[in-house]
Amino acid sequence: MFSNVIDLVGGDLARVEYSLKSIRDMSDGHTSELLGYSLSIGGKRIRPALTLLSGRFFTNDLPDLIPMAASVELLHNATLIHDDVIDKSTVRHGRPTVNDIWGENKAIILGDYVFAKAAELCASTGNIRAIQLFSHTLAMMSIGEMNQAFEAFNLKQTREQYLDRICKKTASLFVLATESGAILSKAPEQSIKILREYGYNLGMAFQIVDDLLDFLSTEDELGKPVGSDLAQGTLTLPAILFLETNSEDGSIRNYFENRGDPEMKRRVMESIRVSSVIQECYDIAAGYCANACQSLRLLPDSVSYQALTDIADFIVKRKN
Amino acid sequence: MFSNVIDLVGGDLARVEYSLKSIRDMSDGHTSELLGYSLSIGGKRIRPALTLLSGRFFTNDLPDLIPMAASVELLHNATLIHDDVIDKSTVRHGRPTVNDIWGENKAIILGDYVFAKAAELCASTGNIRAIQLFSHTLAMMSIGEMNQAFEAFNLKQTREQYLDRICKKTASLFVLATESGAILSKAPEQSIKILREYGYNLGMAFQIVDDLLDFLSTEDELGKPVGSDLAQGTLTLPAILFLETNSEDGSIRNYFENRGDPEMKRRVMESIRVSSVIQECYDIAAGYCANACQSLRLLPDSVSYQALTDIADFIVKRKN
Repeated sequence: MFSNVIDLVGGDLARVEYSLKSIRDMSDGHTSELLGYSLSIGGKRIRPALTLLSGRFFTNDLPDLIPMAASVELLHNATLIHDDVIDKSTVRHGRPTVNDIWGENKAIILGDYVFAKAAELCASTGNIRAIQLFSHTLAMMSIGEMNQAFEAFNLKQTREQYLDRICKKTASLFVLATESGAILSKAPEQSIKILREYGYNLGMAFQIVDDLLDFLSTEDELGKPVGSDLAQGTLTLPAILFLETNSEDGSIRNYFENRGDPEMKRRVMESIRVSSVIQECYDIAAGYCANACQSLRLLPDSVSYQALTDIADFIVKRKN
Repeated sequence: MFSNVIDLVGGDLARVEYSLKSIRDMSDGHTSELLGYSLSIGGKRIRPALTLLSGRFFTNDLPDLIPMAASVELLHNATLIHDDVIDKSTVRHGRPTVNDIWGENKAIILGDYVFAKAAELCASTGNIRAIQLFSHTLAMMSIGEMNQAFEAFNLKQTREQYLDRICKKTASLFVLATESGAILSKAPEQSIKILREYGYNLGMAFQIVDDLLDFLSTEDELGKPVGSDLAQGTLTLPAILFLETNSEDGSIRNYFENRGDPEMKRRVMESIRVSSVIQECYDIAAGYCANACQSLRLLPDSVSYQALTDIADFIVKRKN
């Protein structure tokens, strides 16, 4: 995390981490072990930082922000656990996934447990609006995942379908992160709306870059195999734009028809990597980030402003 | 459902059904189809009836009871969807499971979606205590499932471990059903506690009978294969009591070591079926039901009383 984010909310992020560890420690034996492991292969804690920073616009001391931020991180963690089962992923952040170590069944059950603990933490704020937003978010994320599952290996997908899917699958959780922080800090309605917009735009940019990195990064940088979207039959923005401008190119179709062929996959990856769609995707992501930062200017002066702008900047430039 | 339950809450159960159908209709295309199917192979709606009847002790008209009862049914439905994935079950109530028709991945995602919709309905009551109980219940159920997964094929299990597991896995949802009805109808604390006790005892009896039927019933009656617990390596009360009294008998161990052998399974099933442990299990279940009914006597006079007593009676006598 960046130094000014740490300066601002480092103490509160440590309290979020403490809250997550307490949940692990208070969990039943086996479940505790699996949860602790899953949290340890977790990521950069961007989402809880967003909740804390969003709340900071309107208050400097709000105990409910800590459980809400921890709830957001657990909801993220639960979806990763189930995603790894669904994608049969064996590695995340360079370490074996829960399903790889303990099997799919225990990973499914662990994901359910983590959903429950996320809901418990959110409910502990006593804020009905935040709770309703939380459950709505899980529903949206599931619909996004369902659409992705049904559209696997379908070559006739538009960028609109893609954007709708990542809005549900990814941006909705960023919206939960920022909007819940605003709601709990009793921000005025107009400000809640702005932080909601920021979360949406940031989430869209985040997923587009994520999908780009699956083409551009290395396994070392990503901590997991590259090209896994194509291997799952998931068409992301680079592939969709490539098919838009190269309607005669049959390489993706050929790969989908010969899924196990690593050489065909390498060729598809390479032709997309050297094409103009990469820059086009980065431009689209940068557009979302610009929208995100634009909306922030309407908020009251706050130390959070620079940190949220930096996060948007980081989202596009990151390598993993 | 029994006539006096229908007389009392038939109208409200129809409203619960309408609420479930509305959720299906308002869901996204693919998700709507899968949810509609899953609800159509659902069971007897005992749990929502319990919520409605529990609320009836203290009020005759409470709009929040309908979404809460629907929430309880959806939570039940979500856990069945994931259980069927975990057990690789292909049939439920005589019809193919969601995972059998659409595959495991879509079933996992559907289960997550149904959890979310259950949480949304519960949150729509605006009652924080009911919401906290809801999320706590999902956590308990997951811990019960996790323990079952870790103890699979372990022959050294005690009846105490079994009772603890079914308390978490099954009775907790019955507690949610009855306690949430009491909470929402603004019952006094003592009455909430009594309906909680009733739900706990009823849930324990329900699961013990469920586990008995897996030995005693037929595939036609159950609507799914018999002996599936043993096939999953799950030791239930009949098997645990059988091992307690027949410590020299190696038939279960042999079957676990030769899992695919139908003749070995048939022999284990038969030796348990003709043993005294069946009656012993029924006595234990009847004891829980007696406790359930006993506690009800402390509640104020209500038309619900007879219906809840009848449900307890039915739980032990049922054949599927």
